[in-house]
Amino acid sequence: MSHHHLDQVLAVLDAARAETEASLIEWLRIPSISAQPVHAPDCRRAATWMGSQLEALGFAVGLRETPTHPVVLATHPGPGPDAPHVLIYGHYDVQPPEPLDLWISPPFEPAVVDGPRGKRVVARGAVDDKGQCLTWLAALRAWNTVAGGPPVRVTVLVEGEEEVGSPNLDAVLKAEKNLLAADVIVVSDTNMWAPGVPALTVSLRGMVYTQINLRVGSRDLHSGLYGNSAGNALNILTRVLGDLKDENGRIKIPGFYDGVIEPGANQRADWEALNFDEAAFLGQNGLSVPGGEKGRGALERLWARPTADINGIWGGYMGEGSKTVIACEGHAKLSCRLVPGQEPEKIIEGIRQFVQERIPADASFELQCFASTPGLSIPTDSPHLAAARVALEEEFGKPPVLAGGGGSIPVVESFKRILGLDSLLMGFGLDDDQVHSPNEKFELSCLHSGARSHARLLARLAKG
Amino acid sequence: MSHHHLDQVLAVLDAARAETEASLIEWLRIPSISAQPVHAPDCRRAATWMGSQLEALGFAVGLRETPTHPVVLATHPGPGPDAPHVLIYGHYDVQPPEPLDLWISPPFEPAVVDGPRGKRVVARGAVDDKGQCLTWLAALRAWNTVAGGPPVRVTVLVEGEEEVGSPNLDAVLKAEKNLLAADVIVVSDTNMWAPGVPALTVSLRGMVYTQINLRVGSRDLHSGLYGNSAGNALNILTRVLGDLKDENGRIKIPGFYDGVIEPGANQRADWEALNFDEAAFLGQNGLSVPGGEKGRGALERLWARPTADINGIWGGYMGEGSKTVIACEGHAKLSCRLVPGQEPEKIIEGIRQFVQERIPADASFELQCFASTPGLSIPTDSPHLAAARVALEEEFGKPPVLAGGGGSIPVVESFKRILGLDSLLMGFGLDDDQVHSPNEKFELSCLHSGARSHARLLARLAKG
Repeated sequence: MSHHHLDQVLAVLDAARAETEASLIEWLRIPSISAQPVHAPDCRRAATWMGSQLEALGFAVGLRETPTHPVVLATHPGPGPDAPHVLIYGHYDVQPPEPLDLWISPPFEPAVVDGPRGKRVVARGAVDDKGQCLTWLAALRAWNTVAGGPPVRVTVLVEGEEEVGSPNLDAVLKAEKNLLAADVIVVSDTNMWAPGVPALTVSLRGMVYTQINLRVGSRDLHSGLYGNSAGNALNILTRVLGDLKDENGRIKIPGFYDGVIEPGANQRADWEALNFDEAAFLGQNGLSVPGGEKGRGALERLWARPTADINGIWGGYMGEGSKTVIACEGHAKLSCRLVPGQEPEKIIEGIRQFVQERIPADASFELQCFASTPGLSIPTDSPHLAAARVALEEEFGKPPVLAGGGGSIPVVESFKRILGLDSLLMGFGLDDDQVHSPNEKFELSCLHSGARSHARLLARLAKG
Repeated sequence: MSHHHLDQVLAVLDAARAETEASLIEWLRIPSISAQPVHAPDCRRAATWMGSQLEALGFAVGLRETPTHPVVLATHPGPGPDAPHVLIYGHYDVQPPEPLDLWISPPFEPAVVDGPRGKRVVARGAVDDKGQCLTWLAALRAWNTVAGGPPVRVTVLVEGEEEVGSPNLDAVLKAEKNLLAADVIVVSDTNMWAPGVPALTVSLRGMVYTQINLRVGSRDLHSGLYGNSAGNALNILTRVLGDLKDENGRIKIPGFYDGVIEPGANQRADWEALNFDEAAFLGQNGLSVPGGEKGRGALERLWARPTADINGIWGGYMGEGSKTVIACEGHAKLSCRLVPGQEPEKIIEGIRQFVQERIPADASFELQCFASTPGLSIPTDSPHLAAARVALEEEFGKPPVLAGGGGSIPVVESFKRILGLDSLLMGFGLDDDQVHSPNEKFELSCLHSGARSHARLLARLAKG
């Protein structure tokens, strides 16, 4: 029965492509930037938009308030209480779009343009994560058209703080533990291995994100009067941050590598077998010199080694021309991608110690923390992962790559810790989607094959 | 005759204090920020303001246009063609006032407030250089009241590009060589040794001011997808700039110290005899750790050793909260104070080489240059310097300190190079005037004793 239904569902999905694309564009017009308080009303609009879409499919929908942006929670009984229970996760918030002048079209006025792989939609959030959310939303719509609802019990959770480290989601998960007691969680916020080649992500890097606010002295000074006598906050800050890594790219934060697991020979062999072309991966961005630690493979560096990146820096005179000032303040945003085994709190303390050890006695600093989540691995032997493998193989005609993920999806760790559930990381982005950069895009072919994959996955999971 | 006049001139000056202060406040209201093109009309207003003041004293006044801000040129025949010819220099442009939130009153709404040494005026340009210009303008006014004009031939040159390195002044000096053929030049843009203790500055540091625009790759990237693979412009920039000095504070720019003259034992002894209190000099700014090279005295570091200060830095995400971006661009403003013997062009090439040697093969940078002027020394055995020593001793009751100057006054080097003339650096600022910083101020006592000193100097120079 469900298989007969699936054919109809896929046909309905193909017929509804224009509608699916129109829905995505409508949602992308809402500038739901979670990092910027001025956009709080837009975040709420993006949440209610998703809520109303699900209501139209017979979901019971509610908003759970947080100190910043609300969480959308929606439930559908499916065939009944005995059916498997699938929790679907997504996020409606997006990264800030700056620098604006590099966009080919305004970030919140979605443009559908031709690319080497057919049409694509260009907008902030196109793939991260609004486009990915549309893949499962379209699948749910098609199942509703054909069968009056999904073939399994479905709970949907769409948050609005993923891009700022989901600071308030844990509280919601704890409060809604019963409602969220699913059999499996499906998360679409990851990439395919390559165009036409699906992937399931089985490991994720965590993250700590800090801001260093350094100060020396009580005021800005004149470099003529004070140069060679007064300390300079920007000389100090660059001296500290310039010492982050040794000549081999190894990060010098105290205790940074404590607990990091060295990959085994088999793991390294699997990575080798994927023939990852780092030259092309970098070349498409005008780069040719690999970063990270010397003497380690590209996939090991991306999937199994922690990072330390300066995401922003500012201080002193940043205007046109010259100002001969010795600045008393300097600021930098420093984030680390973490791998399983590293403890975020110890890394933050390591950063504090690293800075303290490198500043003069009359300088001081404040360390703000915007995100703190450990890395994690997902078991590859579960029946749910097996179902996803089959669904993807049926859709793409080839089995998915079991990939590592360089990025962080804090909620996956929270789901494991609070709900005791593993996630299926089945996403449809591509490496050149320019996530978090100007001209972020999502291939319409990925949107539609992703929707078909979700329709198949629901059918597979219905079989239990 | 002139001495009888001088007593009257000093009396007139004392009676005109309120008028002198009102003139200064009026001029300070004009935001003549030379570095910011939007303020070009304000620079012109500041120039014409000074022109009209001199016209009222019988000067023939003209504006010499430059690609940016005009130069005020005014001449007075004095007693006649045989009288000594004194060229007075000042600048009407000011530094940008940022950061605005640290000012106790708006930078261009002058506030007269009480301080430990009596009343002071707080505003951008209060001392640098509008207040200092008022010291000689007030003296010229008093001489005009008493004697119908100054006791010497006077040419006044007030430029509007000093704070951006006087890029166009040389051309004006060359074009006006005949008009500017004076016997001596008087420049008031320096400090007193201490409250009540006058100084003549006999050496000046030069400056090169550069901006480094570093780039790696073609776009910003996501630190999750690319961290440990893609180069990060901000990690690279801080690594380069963090390596500017060795552990002893010695600057590592190639060839940086070529030509620098080591002070002799006598020079060091003179500096020691001044008992300069660096702890107090730093302490008033909340600092306690001396910068510059270890193992050298404070005055040697300030007067006879070159600097490398990062005056501004910016790149990546500088907004609220977190953005996990790997930036493809980073920018920094780097300036060096130079001492006699260093060649600015070689220093700029050294900076270029220093950066080039420290960036990866796929990174590139542009080096902008906003200022380039060598350091210089002024002979201490001229009759003009002798006249200034006497004028200051008569006014303050103690001889002036022959001081070094840490700052740069490019025009003094241009006067020497183009006109073949030495300058008298007789200024009335104090070390705590917060030049180039928020709440820049000028003590009214310095304003008035400066005016009296200029009145005396003109009388002394009249004696030839």
